[in-house]
Amino acid sequence: MVLQEANGAFLDHLKAILPAAAFAADPAGFLTEPRGRWSGRGVVVSPASVDEMSVVMGACHGAQVPVVPYSGGTGLVGGQIVEDLVPVVVSLARMNRVRGVYADENVMEVDAGVILADVQAAAADVGRLFPLSLASEGSARIGGLLATNAGGLNVIRYGNARAQVLGVEVVLADGTIWNGMSRLRKDNTGYDLRDLMIGSEGTLGIITGASLRMMPRPAQEATAMFVVPSPKAAVSLLALAGEHLGETVTAFELIHRQGFDFLEEAGLAYKAPFKDVPEWSVLMKVGLPKGQSAQGALEALFEAAGDLVLDGVIAQSSQQARDLWNIRETIPEGNRRIGSVSSHDISVPISCVPTFIERAPAIIAEIGEFRINCFGHLGDGNLHYNVFPQKGRTRADHENQRDVIKTAVHDLAHSFGGSVSAEHGIGRLKVADLETYGDPAKLAMMRAIKDALDPRGIMNPGAVLRAL
Amino acid sequence: MVLQEANGAFLDHLKAILPAAAFAADPAGFLTEPRGRWSGRGVVVSPASVDEMSVVMGACHGAQVPVVPYSGGTGLVGGQIVEDLVPVVVSLARMNRVRGVYADENVMEVDAGVILADVQAAAADVGRLFPLSLASEGSARIGGLLATNAGGLNVIRYGNARAQVLGVEVVLADGTIWNGMSRLRKDNTGYDLRDLMIGSEGTLGIITGASLRMMPRPAQEATAMFVVPSPKAAVSLLALAGEHLGETVTAFELIHRQGFDFLEEAGLAYKAPFKDVPEWSVLMKVGLPKGQSAQGALEALFEAAGDLVLDGVIAQSSQQARDLWNIRETIPEGNRRIGSVSSHDISVPISCVPTFIERAPAIIAEIGEFRINCFGHLGDGNLHYNVFPQKGRTRADHENQRDVIKTAVHDLAHSFGGSVSAEHGIGRLKVADLETYGDPAKLAMMRAIKDALDPRGIMNPGAVLRAL
Repeated sequence: MVLQEANGAFLDHLKAILPAAAFAADPAGFLTEPRGRWSGRGVVVSPASVDEMSVVMGACHGAQVPVVPYSGGTGLVGGQIVEDLVPVVVSLARMNRVRGVYADENVMEVDAGVILADVQAAAADVGRLFPLSLASEGSARIGGLLATNAGGLNVIRYGNARAQVLGVEVVLADGTIWNGMSRLRKDNTGYDLRDLMIGSEGTLGIITGASLRMMPRPAQEATAMFVVPSPKAAVSLLALAGEHLGETVTAFELIHRQGFDFLEEAGLAYKAPFKDVPEWSVLMKVGLPKGQSAQGALEALFEAAGDLVLDGVIAQSSQQARDLWNIRETIPEGNRRIGSVSSHDISVPISCVPTFIERAPAIIAEIGEFRINCFGHLGDGNLHYNVFPQKGRTRADHENQRDVIKTAVHDLAHSFGGSVSAEHGIGRLKVADLETYGDPAKLAMMRAIKDALDPRGIMNPGAVLRAL
Repeated sequence: MVLQEANGAFLDHLKAILPAAAFAADPAGFLTEPRGRWSGRGVVVSPASVDEMSVVMGACHGAQVPVVPYSGGTGLVGGQIVEDLVPVVVSLARMNRVRGVYADENVMEVDAGVILADVQAAAADVGRLFPLSLASEGSARIGGLLATNAGGLNVIRYGNARAQVLGVEVVLADGTIWNGMSRLRKDNTGYDLRDLMIGSEGTLGIITGASLRMMPRPAQEATAMFVVPSPKAAVSLLALAGEHLGETVTAFELIHRQGFDFLEEAGLAYKAPFKDVPEWSVLMKVGLPKGQSAQGALEALFEAAGDLVLDGVIAQSSQQARDLWNIRETIPEGNRRIGSVSSHDISVPISCVPTFIERAPAIIAEIGEFRINCFGHLGDGNLHYNVFPQKGRTRADHENQRDVIKTAVHDLAHSFGGSVSAEHGIGRLKVADLETYGDPAKLAMMRAIKDALDPRGIMNPGAVLRAL
């Protein structure tokens, strides 16, 4: 199937069948990757409704013009950029209406272009919680968050993005509208196409609306930082926390001392919670129902932990809790300032995390002398395992070692049955990784489904699956 | 594609390529529906491993012989029976090994033939909970529970069957093995085929293994029955319970007085919780972490409920809790003894439940004089809305009204954006309902995916989608 560029004649055609407002966006903002690693060309169209989206897709399908869905543009794997051919970039920015809020049933229906922070605020307005939370929540839009099945901080308790969704509305490759919006908790009528669309990164259809599940707000929260003797102790502490606190553990983050050292080195302020920088620490949050002290629950856990915890701070005020979280949330900025040689978003089975952390440094040391900042969502087995130059050297000094390091880290994660993309997706950056590490039967099924639902191959070509 | 019967020559071929033990099962038990509503013919094969399953499927694919996967056989919509053509019935009964238990990470890996009660017991052995729980748990096997995305009592807290699964192993139509077993909490590498297989009722492949998510066991549980003035008050009480108790509400069941009356009429024993039989009542359970009294939490909810609750009993002992649950669990047996004209497994958005319950009786009264037992999982918007003859008449007296009643109830549920199969699936019984009420774009996608993954149409033909 030969794709066609969105040339002048095609643009004229689109302008004849869509309102002028659909072409008002400045293309510049849509045609570069957030870290500047790609830039491309494209015709940017911003439909204001699912019907206009259907018109766009119908036209592209008819002319075999590729389509790149563009949501908040915050993705880190190049899912939103095409280099080869001039595509139609369809922006969700004008589909930004909260369609309905049903507080009694903990459901909200939104256009896919609503920004995550606005969804969180609409839930808070009715005393509920929308638990998806991540660094880019001020600009990431729901459509892209679902298309990439985004993760973030609260996955241990609430699950990934897909767990927050009851239904989706999708425009298919040929412009057909699937009305899969649903406020139902239980519906066993046919294949689960909702979850097929979620995480397909715009290669099977464009999510234009979603019914989202809200949660009760925890009546009270508390935060603690515990110094642990080892990652193994941290895993045992996680299991103990489950026994004490059930599903009320909202976050459970592992932090290595390198994170603190980088904050220091990069001149980023933080309140030191301990006299000495701890080699390994855990930052955890609980959110409990009415009637029980969240601080008290963390104190009881601390007492029960015995040798698993060497020292601990339980925040006595919301300011102290913010100070602790500030450390975790500033670590990525510290990393940016130091400049990594290679960053990795891997996951392994939780009980394999200690062995992974034990083995990886030796493998990397064989490649060269590096510093490692290992931190992340231990509660999900998801580590951001990032490799940095020694002090005084830079990222550029190790240009030719980047791929070797990446392959070594990915090989090791894979050897534990792990994933080379825990929460960021495949996009265009990791297509080769998926081919290397993916199960062949799965890849063949993916290709068959792609061909069945997008026979002309116009949907985000080159993302997830190699363009044919 | 013309399917071939599993005739004598084909059986000889299977016997030549598989061990004799695969043919030891008595076919009789596999070829009738549990309520006796269908019976069929078939060759029963019981592979002992995923490799043997692959051999069976490869042979069937080569000869274009239909395959009906058979798990525990407890399904209620005829997914496990073929009438027209003699198929190969593949039983999971010999694949019944717990492959591994990882208590620290709350994961268990099992063969698909393990019985649900055995999974629950294996989790309990390591101090964990496997939360899927339903009436047939003593005989239902994991493969079928996942293939139908089973529901049950604890869905409000823990979700349907699909929410309990981290990964699956599947044998595809042509015998290819997809190793999708995974102990990962986060893995965004490619399409979500796990959830596509879960709920596809054996029409896309046979689930032969699963990685299951275990949960912490609640440190303490408590049960209460509250008399409510109306279904609307019950919905408000549900929302209030969420505000007080967060996600610790494990069950929230609505019961109408007809359920009590049928227990009486059918001579089934129960301990009356109130002097008078309540018109509407709610049976709820909470499970809390350490450090808080579960009974105390229910008392606080009772006090806060005001006019939403007319009267209440909070179980003061585990015996009293069992007595309360005995009422709910005996209602289906009461129904069986009375004999319904038509039973329905519908769901509507939770806040629409009161209006549904208000409107349905008038619609049914136009058809004839009936008694209605409306009960079910209010926390999921899932009602078992069952219609019975008046006292002194029988099911047989209303034979010609059954379809009219079913259509009226399904039409009404559909008018609220509801589902005509909340937790039982489509099987062969509800294929026409899916065609009537399903979104056309969804049905077309389902057909395209079915053709892509099972091009010869051998996988459970006639279930979910009409055989072509």
